[in-house]
Amino acid sequence: MSVGDVSKRILLGRKLRSSQLGETLLPKRIALPVFASDALSSVAYAPDEVFIMLSLAGASAYVWSWKVALAVAVVMAAVIASYRQTVHAYPSGGGDYEVAKVNLGVTAGTTVASALLVDYVLTVAVSISAGAQYAASAVPALSGHEASFAAALVVLLMAMNLRGIRESGAFFAVPTYAFMVAMAAMVGWGAWQWWSGDLRPAESADITITPATGFEEPLTTIGLMFLLARAFSSGAAALTGVEAISNGVPAFRRPKSRNAATTLALLGAIAIAMMISVIVLAREIGVRLVDPDEFDRLSRGGGPVPADYDQHTVISQIAESVFTGFPPGFYLTVTVTGVILVLAANTAFNGFPVLGSILAQDGLAPRALGSRGDRLAYSNGIVFLAAMAIALIWIFDAEPTRLIQLYIVGVFVSFNLSQLGMIRHWTRELQGEHDPAVRGRMQRSRVINATGLSFTAVVLVIVLITKFLAGAWITILAMGTFYVLMRAIHGHYERVSDELAADEEDRVLPTRVHAIVLVSKLHKPTLRALAFAQASRPNTLEGVYVATDARATARLMEEWDERRMDVPLKVLHSPYRELVRPIVEYATEIRRANPRGVVAVYIPEYVVGRWWEQLLHNQTALRLKGRLLFTPGVMVTSVPYQLRSSQIAREREERDEFRVRPGDLRSGRVDPRGRRGRDR
Amino acid sequence: MSVGDVSKRILLGRKLRSSQLGETLLPKRIALPVFASDALSSVAYAPDEVFIMLSLAGASAYVWSWKVALAVAVVMAAVIASYRQTVHAYPSGGGDYEVAKVNLGVTAGTTVASALLVDYVLTVAVSISAGAQYAASAVPALSGHEASFAAALVVLLMAMNLRGIRESGAFFAVPTYAFMVAMAAMVGWGAWQWWSGDLRPAESADITITPATGFEEPLTTIGLMFLLARAFSSGAAALTGVEAISNGVPAFRRPKSRNAATTLALLGAIAIAMMISVIVLAREIGVRLVDPDEFDRLSRGGGPVPADYDQHTVISQIAESVFTGFPPGFYLTVTVTGVILVLAANTAFNGFPVLGSILAQDGLAPRALGSRGDRLAYSNGIVFLAAMAIALIWIFDAEPTRLIQLYIVGVFVSFNLSQLGMIRHWTRELQGEHDPAVRGRMQRSRVINATGLSFTAVVLVIVLITKFLAGAWITILAMGTFYVLMRAIHGHYERVSDELAADEEDRVLPTRVHAIVLVSKLHKPTLRALAFAQASRPNTLEGVYVATDARATARLMEEWDERRMDVPLKVLHSPYRELVRPIVEYATEIRRANPRGVVAVYIPEYVVGRWWEQLLHNQTALRLKGRLLFTPGVMVTSVPYQLRSSQIAREREERDEFRVRPGDLRSGRVDPRGRRGRDR
Repeated sequence: MSVGDVSKRILLGRKLRSSQLGETLLPKRIALPVFASDALSSVAYAPDEVFIMLSLAGASAYVWSWKVALAVAVVMAAVIASYRQTVHAYPSGGGDYEVAKVNLGVTAGTTVASALLVDYVLTVAVSISAGAQYAASAVPALSGHEASFAAALVVLLMAMNLRGIRESGAFFAVPTYAFMVAMAAMVGWGAWQWWSGDLRPAESADITITPATGFEEPLTTIGLMFLLARAFSSGAAALTGVEAISNGVPAFRRPKSRNAATTLALLGAIAIAMMISVIVLAREIGVRLVDPDEFDRLSRGGGPVPADYDQHTVISQIAESVFTGFPPGFYLTVTVTGVILVLAANTAFNGFPVLGSILAQDGLAPRALGSRGDRLAYSNGIVFLAAMAIALIWIFDAEPTRLIQLYIVGVFVSFNLSQLGMIRHWTRELQGEHDPAVRGRMQRSRVINATGLSFTAVVLVIVLITKFLAGAWITILAMGTFYVLMRAIHGHYERVSDELAADEEDRVLPTRVHAIVLVSKLHKPTLRALAFAQASRPNTLEGVYVATDARATARLMEEWDERRMDVPLKVLHSPYRELVRPIVEYATEIRRANPRGVVAVYIPEYVVGRWWEQLLHNQTALRLKGRLLFTPGVMVTSVPYQLRSSQIAREREERDEFRVRPGDLRSGRVDPRGRRGRDR
Repeated sequence: MSVGDVSKRILLGRKLRSSQLGETLLPKRIALPVFASDALSSVAYAPDEVFIMLSLAGASAYVWSWKVALAVAVVMAAVIASYRQTVHAYPSGGGDYEVAKVNLGVTAGTTVASALLVDYVLTVAVSISAGAQYAASAVPALSGHEASFAAALVVLLMAMNLRGIRESGAFFAVPTYAFMVAMAAMVGWGAWQWWSGDLRPAESADITITPATGFEEPLTTIGLMFLLARAFSSGAAALTGVEAISNGVPAFRRPKSRNAATTLALLGAIAIAMMISVIVLAREIGVRLVDPDEFDRLSRGGGPVPADYDQHTVISQIAESVFTGFPPGFYLTVTVTGVILVLAANTAFNGFPVLGSILAQDGLAPRALGSRGDRLAYSNGIVFLAAMAIALIWIFDAEPTRLIQLYIVGVFVSFNLSQLGMIRHWTRELQGEHDPAVRGRMQRSRVINATGLSFTAVVLVIVLITKFLAGAWITILAMGTFYVLMRAIHGHYERVSDELAADEEDRVLPTRVHAIVLVSKLHKPTLRALAFAQASRPNTLEGVYVATDARATARLMEEWDERRMDVPLKVLHSPYRELVRPIVEYATEIRRANPRGVVAVYIPEYVVGRWWEQLLHNQTALRLKGRLLFTPGVMVTSVPYQLRSSQIAREREERDEFRVRPGDLRSGRVDPRGRRGRDR
């Protein structure tokens, strides 16, 4: 092992080489936590939203809470059943975008893509904001600073993802299973207390809620319907994240689709059970929640609540009353809930580049996003995602209630289009299929997707009606912007592609090659460039020197003679110390004299390793190359000469190549270091 | 005239082509204003500093003012006489830096260079701060906002210089001659009033100054000496800028040196006359000035001055009393004084890049600064200068009195080293000279320089003693930093140069050339790259395609066959969509198989014109080139294919080349557009 290898190992850490990394294909018990954090974490804020919406009509409306929960559960079951079909039909991991594009065309595909891009931003904003609420309920000092704390969390996540964190199975499994256990313990213990009559009321149970303006009178049927619709559409936030598995099928162990479908069913069952039990238990202990901007509607013992009243989330309140006398239970539950919310946000950081890469392949995003190696493009995406999320957190003061108004639209737009696409898919498949058994299965799948679509379409309409003015318009505007941008990029690539389409005349060979080697001094890089140029046997070869100083010119010419260089040296005079223009003009001149020939310009370049060395070298070469590329009939050859310090940069580049990219795990990518390891 | 030409003309403006621009060599009447603004503008703040220093002992010490002025005048005369020798001996425009480097070695040269760099920053800070004071005395609304106003002015100057302003003769001549006329009118009119007994007292004449702490008792002789030394060293600020002509000799008409020397003498006479008459007149009308931080030492009619007391500069106060009853006279004088101060600051913006370019040629600054074409390097220098000046203005609240403490050290460090260098120069010249007449002239020159040195050495000692704690230490620290930085850059270039020194084995020719052409699609750029590569007749030629997608690969191979390409296509499989690594590995492999051969990698590149198009294209090519340069035995050829939009960038580049660079005029550069014009 060389010294370089040792230093590399120290820098990268031994862990990256451990065998566990080779197993990137996920067994179900690991795939569940990897893809579940986003969907399960919604249980940490969706119930709150149901109670907050119902409280518009006062706490008496809480009687509807379990019915709303049931409605959400039914829709969720339909959606999960729908995605199980998708997972079978599209195992490539393209998810909603692929389904919409293939079956409904580019417009629908681009619409889904815009919705997903917006969703990623909102996933970060909502999850981190909810996480900050939980942190504040456990650490009172954070109360009132939720937005700053949330922004700091996003910056931390961004930094980790820029650095490249490896999503290992354990990374997800431990907190996700811990969350499930904590929730099960809390709900189970709560249920036992309820059965035995020991259940304590919530900390907010003695609070009276004054109905909001417009809800003072007993509700009319229509008024009630509308209230329930609002509560339902907020509760539908529980559905966010269930589509994650459909993007991750390639990461599953074989049989991929079946394992993915099973995991999806399991996920659905857990999420529904959690949501219903949390809502039922919350109602039982008398949790009281209102919009955090409307604390003036709260009163306690006849007087208003104190100015510094702190409203805790549903799960905190349940944990607080169930675990009375056992504080570790409370803290553990709140902590794992917070952690799983952060994990859900991290999901977006992983999904975003994967989507970007798929869009790049379809020409809807800059092509650089399409290849795994382009760290810069990935980093830009991550920074963009974080910046947008922080902006939203700031604007909406890290209040999940307000952010959710923006969130659900995007989610349901993609649910709808993807399910519509699936119906088309089955219809088309049925046309080519004659085996009655297969046809039966397809028809059943089509019915499932149609059911899913009818549910999600109703939800989308309800969401649009109830949320449009509350913030959904922002989402729709953002989606529109992304849509226009992607279409513009696509249009540009199409135009370029047309302009570049080959025809016959393009194959004409240049008649002759006139090579010029740029000479600044007679040192190793120049000699190497001359040797390489000679090896290419051009029709004409000459060294070209731009003379800015008489003495230096004389010295060079003398040395040229002394060394008996067998290549003529052309001196271009430039009294005003311009370097680029004389060369460009000379190349243009040669080309003009022989329009069917080609001018080959050889530029000796030193390759250095440190960033400040880059500033001190090759700036002129860079500029010259830039200018020469605009000159027709010229090709520019860089002949590198590696200085000793270049080793530093080389090692850095290699380290960088082996670094983890966000999204590697969920797209089932084999560890590249492992692969390289075999070669050695 | 093509459409492109017309649009170019519209964009650049017809003015740039006018014949006046061809005459860049300056007659004396234009050279005087071009180089004088910096030196003459010191008259706008140096007298103030003399009065402020003397006022430490109360207004009674003002009796010394004209004697201090006389001492400054004597030193100035000696320095001017000294520089007249420099101008004859070093007509190349290297100025103090060249004199010190050639005669005293690299250490002295680098020291002078650091001093000059610091001086440029301080010239901007002091001149603009003084200008802001003048603006405030004419526009009372600016009082109290001098620092913000000064910072805004610096930003404006920076923007103008980034954009490229042409320094035409008129640009300097009008304000400089206007300043001379205004001063002559003010002094002449004031002298007439004095003679006729009509001279009105200054606005501050009735103010009483309490001596500062430590000066309450009548001064001891030593105390008085120290006070006068402080006043004198502040007054020496009047000398700043006299060295400018020594950097500008190449811009003069022939006989360059003689014309420059004459102009220098003229400049000296004017500056001395102005300074002495301003000080005498100011004392006569009873101007009272103290350090702006010590207004509590002022009283008027028994009581303290009001809290919002506004102390005006000496020239404002003189103009105010001389031009009583004729406000245009006052406003004109104050305005031209302000303008010439801004002009002086602009001098620094012009001198900075010129110095940078000289330092770059000597390997003390990044080489990119050395060639005229590197707009980016120039821009960085300008932004750096502006940022440093703004920082100083902010820290010292735009008070010239405080900034001058920093200014004079640097100026006198270069005066001293340059004069010491001149003495060495004459001594060396005398050794080789035998003609008695020439020897006589040389000896006289040496005496003049020795006199200059003795004066400036005394001043430097006084400045160091009296100003060190008041701020000169900051300058010395900054100089040290620049010094270390320049030595480090020089050391780096030396090391690289050693590493690159050619030896015999470097001329071995590679035995064979294995060319690979990167193929992404079979379009025009690829066909061109293949044609160019074929024209170079390599020993082996193949197309190389990185396959990330089975369908696309099949399509390409089919097309390759259909078009009956006569070049074999090598397909590299990359299931994880990496593009760069497979190619780098393939090139390394080829090279390993044939270590004495060379691998030529041809990369087809589209050349696009708009910045956002750059983002959408060639990012992978760029990264690939970066990686290949680290691979020994590889040369990388870009084969450009110019898309239609590339025309935009080409025109932009050309515009940029013809744009004026700061410092063009004073280094005597012929307008490049004029030169190009002749070719057509």
